[in-house]
Amino acid sequence: MNFSVPRVDDALVAALQHKIDRKTKPLGALGLLEKLALQVGRIQNTLSPQLGEAQMLVFAADHGAAKAGVSPFPQDVTWQMVENYLAGGAAINVFARQNKIRLHVIDAGVAHEFGPRDNLIDAKISPTGTRNYLEEPAMSAAERDAALAKGIEIAQRVADSGARVFAFGEMGIGNTAASALITSQLTRTPLIDCIGRGAGLDDRGLEHKRALLQRAAARAALPADADALTVLAEFGGFEIAMIAGAMIGAAQRGGLLLIDGFIVTAALLVAVRLAPEVRDYCVFCHHSAEPGAQAQLKSLAAEPLIDLGLRLGEGTGAALAWPLVQSAAAFLNEMASFESAGVSDKEPRG
Amino acid sequence: MNFSVPRVDDALVAALQHKIDRKTKPLGALGLLEKLALQVGRIQNTLSPQLGEAQMLVFAADHGAAKAGVSPFPQDVTWQMVENYLAGGAAINVFARQNKIRLHVIDAGVAHEFGPRDNLIDAKISPTGTRNYLEEPAMSAAERDAALAKGIEIAQRVADSGARVFAFGEMGIGNTAASALITSQLTRTPLIDCIGRGAGLDDRGLEHKRALLQRAAARAALPADADALTVLAEFGGFEIAMIAGAMIGAAQRGGLLLIDGFIVTAALLVAVRLAPEVRDYCVFCHHSAEPGAQAQLKSLAAEPLIDLGLRLGEGTGAALAWPLVQSAAAFLNEMASFESAGVSDKEPRG
Repeated sequence: MNFSVPRVDDALVAALQHKIDRKTKPLGALGLLEKLALQVGRIQNTLSPQLGEAQMLVFAADHGAAKAGVSPFPQDVTWQMVENYLAGGAAINVFARQNKIRLHVIDAGVAHEFGPRDNLIDAKISPTGTRNYLEEPAMSAAERDAALAKGIEIAQRVADSGARVFAFGEMGIGNTAASALITSQLTRTPLIDCIGRGAGLDDRGLEHKRALLQRAAARAALPADADALTVLAEFGGFEIAMIAGAMIGAAQRGGLLLIDGFIVTAALLVAVRLAPEVRDYCVFCHHSAEPGAQAQLKSLAAEPLIDLGLRLGEGTGAALAWPLVQSAAAFLNEMASFESAGVSDKEPRG
Repeated sequence: MNFSVPRVDDALVAALQHKIDRKTKPLGALGLLEKLALQVGRIQNTLSPQLGEAQMLVFAADHGAAKAGVSPFPQDVTWQMVENYLAGGAAINVFARQNKIRLHVIDAGVAHEFGPRDNLIDAKISPTGTRNYLEEPAMSAAERDAALAKGIEIAQRVADSGARVFAFGEMGIGNTAASALITSQLTRTPLIDCIGRGAGLDDRGLEHKRALLQRAAARAALPADADALTVLAEFGGFEIAMIAGAMIGAAQRGGLLLIDGFIVTAALLVAVRLAPEVRDYCVFCHHSAEPGAQAQLKSLAAEPLIDLGLRLGEGTGAALAWPLVQSAAAFLNEMASFESAGVSDKEPRG
């Protein structure tokens, strides 16, 4: 499999910064949006970046460990929520409609037979989801590689239709648990600091999740320097693997990647181990309320755009932040400069 | 003048919370957006709030103290930036276009003769701006009252055309200085903690601004419990007074108020002293990078939606946050419930 991703070009950094600095505003007054405008210009290697319509790829899959009680929701909620996406009633549908984001729903391994359906991409790696990582690795090396390859292929196909911005979302009952195990291992953070309430565990449920995940980590007994491919196969899930692949595929095509919360960022931890260049294509959209997000963001040196206490998943944080990304490109393209507007600049001081 | 504002109704709080809680998402998973949806429903007293097009009222005026060196920009930049708004080239134009916000530009007292112009509302209180508060009060009681009344009138006129959402922006070289004086006085915060670099003072400029504002405060010598009307007249400016009036006028019509950064929030400090009920109509859009914003937000118990290091003014923080406010109403109106979508709820635990 080809994981190679081109470096983001820095040929235009000085010219972009100059263009930003001559806009009719105090120097630096647009804060993080100025860094974002610079990044978008670098990725597209132009002073006038065009973002077009953002593509939201929502990958769904089931987790063998879900039945052991790592989530307060029954496993059936995974397929039921996929039906909700297809019917247009979920949070991600609402925010995608509002912000004119195109939604693609992908079955990466949901334990349910949907049959042929409009608007559902069948990329099922297994009809039963991953295996239970409390007992054995969640997936085989072949399944993992198939999921990564499928993710690359899907993102590249979307890119080849003209898309330049890719957001990632997920659904999978139990996937904050898998993400906690991956995050702990790849950021070398104590597991306890990576485990949260997910979809809403109470204190007792949280204790149970902690005990189960400690058992899973002990069963896998990975060395601290285990490679990302091994970690991914041990803990899954298929949606996480396919997102990691899609991130690589989108970056290979020079896309801008909108990174959502805890689960999507766990996939990114895998992707940047396979292709470190992916990092520079990423916009970190929001700071998830899940406690393990801290370790992730620190490890990736990420400054998220919003922090609204969100912990919904589905890509909602990315969908909500998308207008801010558009604002960064818009000010770079559309604002007048001091010269063009005839506005006096700051007075020089001695 | 009539400052009375109706209380926000709480008749529907329980019904709104129930509607939010039955949406197909974990309880509370939309964080601050859930509080916002509840607030919007309360303000409009409905389970299905409609926001419509947001109206951005940008008030501009000049400050007599600007010539004393409280800003690194020459005073002419105030009228030059008004011209930039009229030509569509400023940051607020770009973000208003992007997010479909209607822009209204109001001359509250710019020291410049624009002549009759399309799209500029002439509400000039004085052709020369405010007086220099280093020497005397910035405005007379009559000027202050005229500015407040004009603000109320303008907002009510916009409301009567059908608008339900009001954002406020400002332009006025020197207005972070006036806002620092107002904020210090009305929040009883040491002046030094309210003074920042504004449009970009260097260390020497900041020292100069601090010295000037300490002199202004000593000259005015207001008692700690000075009323807001006195504070406003002492330090100005006309744009701040007119924004305070417009906030009251918009709240009197049951509008939702989008609060921008440091200067707009200084105006809000005045407005809530005149009409405390205004507070509950406010959405705090962003956390300004100006240091005095801390004291303001604490005093108003505000949780801003975004924190991007912005310090541009013009209402840009409100314009950037507007899509998030729309998202709050959209999820309340459009998301499916567990019942309507046939999704299983959380399993009860013993």
